[in-house]
Amino acid sequence: MTTPNPGPCFPRGFRAAGIHCGIRPNREKPDLALLVSDAPASAAAVYTTNLVKGAPLLVTKEHLQDGTARAVICNSGNANTCNADGIEIAEAMCALVEQHFGIPAGEVVVASTGVIGQPLPIAPIEAGMPALLSYDGSEQAARAIMTTDTFPKLAAAEFEVDGVPCRVGGMAKGSGMIHPNMATLLAFITTDVAIAPGLLEKTLQDSVEGTLNMLSIDGDTSTNDMCCVLANGLAGNEIITAPGKGLDAFRQALLQALTELTRMLARDGEGATKLLECRVTGAKSLADARLAAKGVIASSLFKSAMFGADANWGRVLCALGYSGAAFDPARVSVSFESPAGRIAVCGNGAGIPFSEEQASLVLGEEEITILIGLGDGEAAATAWGCDLTYDYVKINGDYRT
Amino acid sequence: MTTPNPGPCFPRGFRAAGIHCGIRPNREKPDLALLVSDAPASAAAVYTTNLVKGAPLLVTKEHLQDGTARAVICNSGNANTCNADGIEIAEAMCALVEQHFGIPAGEVVVASTGVIGQPLPIAPIEAGMPALLSYDGSEQAARAIMTTDTFPKLAAAEFEVDGVPCRVGGMAKGSGMIHPNMATLLAFITTDVAIAPGLLEKTLQDSVEGTLNMLSIDGDTSTNDMCCVLANGLAGNEIITAPGKGLDAFRQALLQALTELTRMLARDGEGATKLLECRVTGAKSLADARLAAKGVIASSLFKSAMFGADANWGRVLCALGYSGAAFDPARVSVSFESPAGRIAVCGNGAGIPFSEEQASLVLGEEEITILIGLGDGEAAATAWGCDLTYDYVKINGDYRT
Repeated sequence: MTTPNPGPCFPRGFRAAGIHCGIRPNREKPDLALLVSDAPASAAAVYTTNLVKGAPLLVTKEHLQDGTARAVICNSGNANTCNADGIEIAEAMCALVEQHFGIPAGEVVVASTGVIGQPLPIAPIEAGMPALLSYDGSEQAARAIMTTDTFPKLAAAEFEVDGVPCRVGGMAKGSGMIHPNMATLLAFITTDVAIAPGLLEKTLQDSVEGTLNMLSIDGDTSTNDMCCVLANGLAGNEIITAPGKGLDAFRQALLQALTELTRMLARDGEGATKLLECRVTGAKSLADARLAAKGVIASSLFKSAMFGADANWGRVLCALGYSGAAFDPARVSVSFESPAGRIAVCGNGAGIPFSEEQASLVLGEEEITILIGLGDGEAAATAWGCDLTYDYVKINGDYRT
Repeated sequence: MTTPNPGPCFPRGFRAAGIHCGIRPNREKPDLALLVSDAPASAAAVYTTNLVKGAPLLVTKEHLQDGTARAVICNSGNANTCNADGIEIAEAMCALVEQHFGIPAGEVVVASTGVIGQPLPIAPIEAGMPALLSYDGSEQAARAIMTTDTFPKLAAAEFEVDGVPCRVGGMAKGSGMIHPNMATLLAFITTDVAIAPGLLEKTLQDSVEGTLNMLSIDGDTSTNDMCCVLANGLAGNEIITAPGKGLDAFRQALLQALTELTRMLARDGEGATKLLECRVTGAKSLADARLAAKGVIASSLFKSAMFGADANWGRVLCALGYSGAAFDPARVSVSFESPAGRIAVCGNGAGIPFSEEQASLVLGEEEITILIGLGDGEAAATAWGCDLTYDYVKINGDYRT
């Protein structure tokens, strides 16, 4: 159902731009993004659980207290975190949006991503404002929020509320310091559905639980990350104010867009060569299923084995064992699946003889699914991640310079 | 205070051997170790918290229920975990010790380390038993329990109880799948002090909290690991049955030996080029201090930065923030120290201008101390770990084959 031109400009009444203003030295890398709604919008966000929070998050929280927003400004190359003047700079960024675009500073969501602890200069951002008027579209904006990402991440979905066609779109950036805790990256979602702010926030929280919060790249939880949604109501549906078919349709579309972004983020994890999808079934509860799936996807040892296309299922059992999930080890089954086929490696908690040659073929692909049956109940969950590679270390061994 | 010949044979009445019996294909790598006490000994152990536990651990727990043991048998190259016949094989290993050395099977501690989920053949162990009679000493035994370790780990310390000289010695193996949870590796400690079993267990538990449990290599908690202590009383002191000076002296010596082993394990973490020691002071409570120190030492991003000698202190703040420790980010200070000097990089939660050149010199050394002040109280803790390198990924990308 993805559209030919996905992204936050797919819903009606949203415009976006991305430019190079000079925060990053490399002129080829855009570093400032703007997203604007032509109409007032309901807005909600979820934030990192890190105790050390970036200054932009604190300012955004303040601005979203009334449940509305009309614009997002976001720079890359500098996180504006652990700086004495952080709040001041984040507020200045919102003031610049008011000055140049006529949107009240209190209606602006502000975000920054990049190095922690280096003062963020306001001058290049100010100088860049006029160029943002170009509104050159979603893809440039998605590029401008990238840090070590290798490709822009855009998604979209369509749905209907009482016969009225509505749209949802979004962009996100990764790709290190990502772990399953509330909002572990930057994602900006837009929709033209009309929905009450409280309900929008609840729906966002629910949808993030099974998507962005089931993603782990490296176990580090960033200081700056959030997922924010703006709903401007331009689809013209009667405003959703209570649970029902309309809300279900929106939730489905939001889930679809967030799942797509989550998979893209996993595939583009720092240094990754493989997308890993871990599907746990047969758990006693949803909480157990999620703990189990996250435990496997976050294990450095298992991730290294996947990089080496090594069917070392013992590491799956080991990660399950310390995941915190309740289960009976003697009932566990494990299979690996990819476009090259499917291979069962463990049943009833013990090894199943398998062909190493076939296992190498299955694990040689770029997208691997790990299927785990716990044999303990009806609950299921999926988590996403990537392999651990030489390049992860290389990228992070010298990030600042 | 370390002796010229450290290891589990330093206390009186302990003998050890290490041989190649054929579990590992490489004849250069010893794979079977035996440790024997000439006299009956009090014994205690702490075990992995992983829900999936190796069969040898289950058998050992059973054997230690009466608080005594006289021998340890341990193989490397195979974890004897997630195998249908695991318990049977572990019991057979103890029976072989009884048959060849006259020590009742119920007095034997059994351990296995290596690949999970491959049946462990008993034949090579049986064939190797006569060669263990050589008692060729601590170092060969310490080599025989190594997996991807690059050097054997031995430590010892001396102390006095009521004027009677006593000794403690030990050996340990790492070096991946190590994370701060109860007993995350194999460590076998011996002492000739006379001490009651219950008190021995309590002292071991306390001592492990601040040493082995403050070590993280990769965040994975193994299925097979334990730390076990045998106390045979051959020093001739009056048996310690209550807290007092004698117990304090033993605890100090045990802590010294365990700290030495912990540092060796950290230095020899898989693929490591640097030993990292993180000292947190000024915490509100010991629990907060430990959470904070462990959080930093376990961060993949921070470990990668140390590999690259990059003074990226923002990652220290970030890891503190998600560690679970309570603190005020605005009061945090961070310095790096090594034999090349000391450099302050963060004060009051914000950056301090520093010379990148000097930082490179400090971080270019093989032993780095990260000094963190939380400015919130009096509690302190130290954690140990290592950098994250290309070689960690290489070693673990193809471990089985």
